[in-house]
Amino acid sequence: MVLLSGGLDSATTLAIARARGFECYGLSIDYGQRHRAELSAAAAVAEALGAREQRVLRLTLEEFGGSALTDASIAIPVDGVQRGIPVTYVPARNTVMLALALAWAEVLGSRDIFIGVNAVDYSGYPDCRPEYIVAFERMANLATKAAVEGATLKIHAPLIDLSKAEIIGRGNQLGVNYGLTVSCYQADQGGRACGICDSCRLRRAGFAAAGVVDPTTYRPL
Amino acid sequence: MVLLSGGLDSATTLAIARARGFECYGLSIDYGQRHRAELSAAAAVAEALGAREQRVLRLTLEEFGGSALTDASIAIPVDGVQRGIPVTYVPARNTVMLALALAWAEVLGSRDIFIGVNAVDYSGYPDCRPEYIVAFERMANLATKAAVEGATLKIHAPLIDLSKAEIIGRGNQLGVNYGLTVSCYQADQGGRACGICDSCRLRRAGFAAAGVVDPTTYRPL
Repeated sequence: MVLLSGGLDSATTLAIARARGFECYGLSIDYGQRHRAELSAAAAVAEALGAREQRVLRLTLEEFGGSALTDASIAIPVDGVQRGIPVTYVPARNTVMLALALAWAEVLGSRDIFIGVNAVDYSGYPDCRPEYIVAFERMANLATKAAVEGATLKIHAPLIDLSKAEIIGRGNQLGVNYGLTVSCYQADQGGRACGICDSCRLRRAGFAAAGVVDPTTYRPL
Repeated sequence: MVLLSGGLDSATTLAIARARGFECYGLSIDYGQRHRAELSAAAAVAEALGAREQRVLRLTLEEFGGSALTDASIAIPVDGVQRGIPVTYVPARNTVMLALALAWAEVLGSRDIFIGVNAVDYSGYPDCRPEYIVAFERMANLATKAAVEGATLKIHAPLIDLSKAEIIGRGNQLGVNYGLTVSCYQADQGGRACGICDSCRLRRAGFAAAGVVDPTTYRPL
């Protein structure tokens, strides 16, 4: 079970899971994010990397709001990555997504959930930190019928201590076509990136540091 | 924040939260459950018990299936409560619901989530056990921006060590109108109960043991 947003990190995570020999199911969540182009990207990435199945589950998190990614009245920051947790933080997003992955994983009989969180070149989101992942895994192993019956669920976060450049290097070795991925928080319908939001800045710097040609299509601003 | 299914336990939980002085927001999840009458019941319960707001969030868990409650091809057991975890178990349901409650709670600035889980007269679901609730709370306190900024989130499970009779007695004292609630796993559209599924059996026995008149409307079978 691979949480697949359609961005760079989750595509690399899927490639790593495949390289480790897992048969992969990609779960993407349509949570009302303004960068909906990432959902099309997720489908393309899943197919290119040989996922056995990919699903998009609709969840109307925009009813709750509270994030620049789900509330169009909050502007996406474009002046550079600042310290602290930015307004693009979506309340409890990874908890919700991992919970949904846990649900589908149990139905499928999967004991392995992969998530592309990263705590190095990241936006400071609390639910990307190693201690959070450990706590979720511990909770998950008390939550399900599968766990009661003896299955041990593992949350894999293979990118968690890698720099963005290292992630790109790893994915490049594994043949990930990053041209299919969309990271931009305000990508247009065609998936073209703004180049100036935090996610674009971290991504662009990562390609530069990795010495890999950046395949991103940037739109004129 | 009160998870409000529309059943007996969550109605009592809302009454307890109100009695403790909380301003309450009820969150109900339309997860494709076959007993959809509980969603109408949730709205009636929220209004009767003075919740400030109640919302129903749609989540298509029936796409995953894996439970008699979300897959019409799996029959609801009606021959009496058996040992072990029954087919009405919905994979990771409480984890998904608590995750969504966590999300809305963070947006509202709430630090208190109430859930009516019970580990005495219950169906053996793993995500109703005290150790699970403790693990979820620990995870939640690493998951959010609010937690990073110093807020401590508490998962309240005020029914967890009560018998069904004790729950009914408590709710009765607090003026809960159990006639509004729907517990039956196969309630009809009008909310009328079958009387023979596990949930009906536990509920009916609870009223008898509490010495409280059972206001449930049972349908002819």
